[in-house]
Amino acid sequence: MSGRLAIVGLGPGDERYLTPEADDALTVAEALYGYGPYLDRVPAREDQSRHPSDNREESARAKAALRHAAKGAEVALVSGGDPGVFAMAASVCEEIAAGPKAWRALDVEIVPGITAMHAVAARTGAPLGHDFCAISLSDNLKPWELVLKRLNAAAEGGFVVALYNPVSHARPWQLGDALARLARHLPAATPVIFGRAVGRGDESITITTLTEAPGVAADMATLVIVGSAETRLILREGRPPLVYTPRAVEKVSA
Amino acid sequence: MSGRLAIVGLGPGDERYLTPEADDALTVAEALYGYGPYLDRVPAREDQSRHPSDNREESARAKAALRHAAKGAEVALVSGGDPGVFAMAASVCEEIAAGPKAWRALDVEIVPGITAMHAVAARTGAPLGHDFCAISLSDNLKPWELVLKRLNAAAEGGFVVALYNPVSHARPWQLGDALARLARHLPAATPVIFGRAVGRGDESITITTLTEAPGVAADMATLVIVGSAETRLILREGRPPLVYTPRAVEKVSA
Repeated sequence: MSGRLAIVGLGPGDERYLTPEADDALTVAEALYGYGPYLDRVPAREDQSRHPSDNREESARAKAALRHAAKGAEVALVSGGDPGVFAMAASVCEEIAAGPKAWRALDVEIVPGITAMHAVAARTGAPLGHDFCAISLSDNLKPWELVLKRLNAAAEGGFVVALYNPVSHARPWQLGDALARLARHLPAATPVIFGRAVGRGDESITITTLTEAPGVAADMATLVIVGSAETRLILREGRPPLVYTPRAVEKVSA
Repeated sequence: MSGRLAIVGLGPGDERYLTPEADDALTVAEALYGYGPYLDRVPAREDQSRHPSDNREESARAKAALRHAAKGAEVALVSGGDPGVFAMAASVCEEIAAGPKAWRALDVEIVPGITAMHAVAARTGAPLGHDFCAISLSDNLKPWELVLKRLNAAAEGGFVVALYNPVSHARPWQLGDALARLARHLPAATPVIFGRAVGRGDESITITTLTEAPGVAADMATLVIVGSAETRLILREGRPPLVYTPRAVEKVSA
């Protein structure tokens, strides 16, 4: 009686992004776990139990799914975007590391999905076309000082930066502080993209500059991409601009 | 007669990863462009012309696809993984920026796909579970000195690093040099993952350490993930280890 836990990436919101592999993993599951709004994206089925939980409860959700799988069940834990990017895969690994031996015997499968930064990038051109990094602005689990250190490293290294979890009710000032930190290193005209609810009905994309970015509204459903000094715009008549970071860099700045 | 160019991400290799959105974009296309082996993944259809090209010909391929779309055609340019990550989306933007005005009038759509680092991460646990970056080791279009600068910045910042294009026939020493550079900053036991041909029949995953990594074979189909000092392993009896980077960091090292 060895159970199975699949941690399934739903992608950025619409079923257009759900891979056949993820669809299969949802189909075979007896029980579904996940943050309520993510779980709501999966059509209900009478022969499948559903266990929604709140946003902040990653650890309890991971443990509940592991306990259920350890009873011999086929369990799917759903995640928006990709479960490996600031999402449930790390949380489950943490619980397996700290939990009972039976959890290390489970068949654990992680099913990748399209994470927000690639969906937002695709909407605007190729802002991540050169070296880039992804940083979560949540300081719930790491000191803000470390976030600033990483923003410095990213900007000095010439990386394009994707900012996850830019804002929440409990963290209203972090995005402004992060943009100000990047502005120490980057030109005022550096392109900045705000992508909100990409792939959903209420999707919105804002292309602005590093100077103007602090005035743009953002929330928990927003992903922010800050260009490097190389990132540029192609203006198009009657169409939104394309944002891209060229593949070639001629020389290394000091 | 305004044409349309869709730049379509096929994901890491198998149709299990092809999103419905990508499938739709391929279905409506009259003409398909792409690197030969990627194009071979798309089933042939009599009413669709196919224009394969060699690996090194990104610029010529992008121009040919744009020229074809500018004639009023529905053209799809296929890309392995995600077109926005070291792939065709940036190349197309570069050609639009430098090309005739008609190319800026085209309807250009980028369809995201799952890029190699997320597929490899999913196979092994959650190595990208905390802040991470993606660096191409190709020095065809940027100086090697810049790659080393970015590796320093990434390691000093505590990022997990995904290395794209680690090796080719023309670039045999870059991966060894990059690993040596990261080893200046990171513990000898830092987990390193080699993921080759993920999602294909000949997939192989090797989990090793930074000290042992230079002895592992890699080629153009390999994606390498080098952990941070926080990345760790969960050993499991009868199963491969899980590799993960915890979400929490207690303090900032100097």
